[in-house]
Amino acid sequence: MSDVNPPTGMRDVLPEDYFLRDSLIAVIRRVYESYGYVPVDTPVAERLEYLTGKAGGEAEQLMFKILKRGARLERDTEGELADMALRYDLTVSLCRFYATNRHLLPRLFRRYHVAPVWRADRPQRGRFREFYQCDVDVIGEKGTLPECEVILATVEAIRALGLGDHFVKISDRRLLPIVFTSMGFSDQEVRKAMVSVDKLDKIGVQGVLTESEGYLAEDKRASLERFLSDITGREDLELSVGALGEWGQRCSGELEPLLQNLRTISRVIREAQGEPVALTFWPSLVRGMAYYDGPIFEIWNREHPFSLAGGGRYDGLIGVFLGEEVPACGFSIGFERILTVMKERGTAAVRRTKVHALVALREEGIEGVGLCLARQLRAAGVATEVYPYTPKIKRQFEHAERLGIPWVVLVGKPEGAGQELELANTIDRSRAKASWESILSSLRPTVGIK
Amino acid sequence: MSDVNPPTGMRDVLPEDYFLRDSLIAVIRRVYESYGYVPVDTPVAERLEYLTGKAGGEAEQLMFKILKRGARLERDTEGELADMALRYDLTVSLCRFYATNRHLLPRLFRRYHVAPVWRADRPQRGRFREFYQCDVDVIGEKGTLPECEVILATVEAIRALGLGDHFVKISDRRLLPIVFTSMGFSDQEVRKAMVSVDKLDKIGVQGVLTESEGYLAEDKRASLERFLSDITGREDLELSVGALGEWGQRCSGELEPLLQNLRTISRVIREAQGEPVALTFWPSLVRGMAYYDGPIFEIWNREHPFSLAGGGRYDGLIGVFLGEEVPACGFSIGFERILTVMKERGTAAVRRTKVHALVALREEGIEGVGLCLARQLRAAGVATEVYPYTPKIKRQFEHAERLGIPWVVLVGKPEGAGQELELANTIDRSRAKASWESILSSLRPTVGIK
Repeated sequence: MSDVNPPTGMRDVLPEDYFLRDSLIAVIRRVYESYGYVPVDTPVAERLEYLTGKAGGEAEQLMFKILKRGARLERDTEGELADMALRYDLTVSLCRFYATNRHLLPRLFRRYHVAPVWRADRPQRGRFREFYQCDVDVIGEKGTLPECEVILATVEAIRALGLGDHFVKISDRRLLPIVFTSMGFSDQEVRKAMVSVDKLDKIGVQGVLTESEGYLAEDKRASLERFLSDITGREDLELSVGALGEWGQRCSGELEPLLQNLRTISRVIREAQGEPVALTFWPSLVRGMAYYDGPIFEIWNREHPFSLAGGGRYDGLIGVFLGEEVPACGFSIGFERILTVMKERGTAAVRRTKVHALVALREEGIEGVGLCLARQLRAAGVATEVYPYTPKIKRQFEHAERLGIPWVVLVGKPEGAGQELELANTIDRSRAKASWESILSSLRPTVGIK
Repeated sequence: MSDVNPPTGMRDVLPEDYFLRDSLIAVIRRVYESYGYVPVDTPVAERLEYLTGKAGGEAEQLMFKILKRGARLERDTEGELADMALRYDLTVSLCRFYATNRHLLPRLFRRYHVAPVWRADRPQRGRFREFYQCDVDVIGEKGTLPECEVILATVEAIRALGLGDHFVKISDRRLLPIVFTSMGFSDQEVRKAMVSVDKLDKIGVQGVLTESEGYLAEDKRASLERFLSDITGREDLELSVGALGEWGQRCSGELEPLLQNLRTISRVIREAQGEPVALTFWPSLVRGMAYYDGPIFEIWNREHPFSLAGGGRYDGLIGVFLGEEVPACGFSIGFERILTVMKERGTAAVRRTKVHALVALREEGIEGVGLCLARQLRAAGVATEVYPYTPKIKRQFEHAERLGIPWVVLVGKPEGAGQELELANTIDRSRAKASWESILSSLRPTVGIK
């Protein structure tokens, strides 16, 4: 097999990448746990019937479906070959999880979930078919506390990762449909216009208008243009109907409660004090998933053309599984994008191993001696690996240098009273005969510093 | 939807289970990292062509296959509906990973991988279709050091988990085929006899003989019976052809090098000193996967009828992907079984949250005050969650008690100079008015102790 690659759009995680990912996830988890979010996990796959139609029709095309097995596949007569699919986000799994385990969970349930999801998207630079999300959600509370808290917690996580230069876009999922309906759009036109407006920040007002030629009549496009011009490209929009121009005034009766709600969120976040959160009203915000039905928000970094995190309220989704409405609100960090930003900044430390010492065998047949020495070093707190005997001692040093192991302990055959030991340092390249005691006293500080 | 369950044989992990699993994985990772094993990850799915035929024919029936998508599915004319499958173990993925990334990896590569695998087995008590394995492997060394080291490291991990009462079965995968071939078995008879002997500890000599009636002639069954009787049920078998009875003597020429190798492993492990490892020669050991081709081993707990870990050498497997033989040897911990044993013993601590304090709001509209107080508590090192206002203050206490949160800080409207605060303890049920300073001095030790 010459083409030995992982599946298209999926990646291997090499050790240095694993250490980096692991350390970032630890930072995120620590922040979320300090807010009372508790970790859960769910199967990577869910029954197909739960996944289809929950997040809009588009999601089904993106699913990796799992073939039925054995007799169930043979018995199939309806052409439905699959019975499960890999999850495409963590929210639908959370709702199914909540419906399944509700009797075991507290009435107010805060959970986080750091796990991979899968989408059969066309692979692109920076877009993968298997990628991690880090979600926090609050289930069981219809007040504005969840919105405030998931925003505060996620902003704190982003800051703890060292990504300071960001701001939060906020709006309400119901805002654009109210405006568009008042412009005379049909339901279908509303849906299509939402898809176009979602790209506003990328393609601009003219791009949206060009795209809307395919489904909007001339007069509706003129209304859309006036509205978009009023709301676009300003980070200082007030949370008021006045800030939404002519169409804001026309729909003020319906829009005012949504804006009042957003003003409360903004005020509570300010009252929580601490480092200020840059909250920006962004009326053109859409968010992809169809399940949002209240406030929505995204975190953007000023230097990158993509959001680092996105979320919102989805009070209707759990009801689909449970047959009873349960309010819910969450925020999801796009972990791969965070990683991209961290790597571009070059601020992340590279680590290839946690080992501090390499025991190098200078003769054949002394594996036991080497393993014994390594065991004693580990017992003293020094992570240690053993390299097998090789006539080329250079290879053992290359191994240590490549992995960034600072110390090499060379061990020969036991003779007379004790071991013949040498201690070498791969950084300053020093090398000298040494006793067990002097090795320990040299190595102990290394462990402390690391 | 009334039947809202995860897919058959797959499980949700609830928070208290997650904390337990996480803490055990941390113990295992710490031990493996101290030996120089580095973590990697691979996609959950691999191309179907890599998975089929690598681990024997049985594996294909156990695979969860992933349906081709879009045009590729429509174009299909050969009835091959799938192009990928979920991995059924971590070893085949490791070999593919090594073949893909070899140019980026050290010549001697020690890696660990803690991750789920999937098998479409019939679900049973304690057997799941999605379960975790913890694997360590050494790639690139043909000497006996890898065997010794993976045994020492895995025994240390099992001990670090507090599972002291165990022993290690060891044999060589080539041993039984040598004996059976000398009895005149055909290749097919050897394979079938291996499957039967694999169950020897469960069904006994008579069980194996009964099963072999289907494929072995009378005289061969008589030979098999004499051999099995010689080697069965003794934990003090010497690592010598003499200990294998009549058939050991007959095959001594071929068996002696294998046994010599096992004696070296046993000696080196003894020389490594530390706490003794109970190594037991177990000639009937088979191991399921077809890729083993050298020493094989399992860790057993005396109180349970299953192995906790299993592994061995598989020098031929990487060559299938790379077209060039690379020696390899590993050990895999069956994580779900470890968990079963830990839970049965009842020694694992139950943790439902990492939070130490609950901020309970006594009035509406003071979310900002509560979030501010929580932020200050977190800044002081006290993980804190906020409960929204509810007219039933009892509900807030129930929440804290249910999750095991020791402290409740009740906060009312700001009045005059400062906040009206009360501090309650959910364990001794004390409750008193308190200042911010006295709350901090009460809570700080909690954090220290936890």
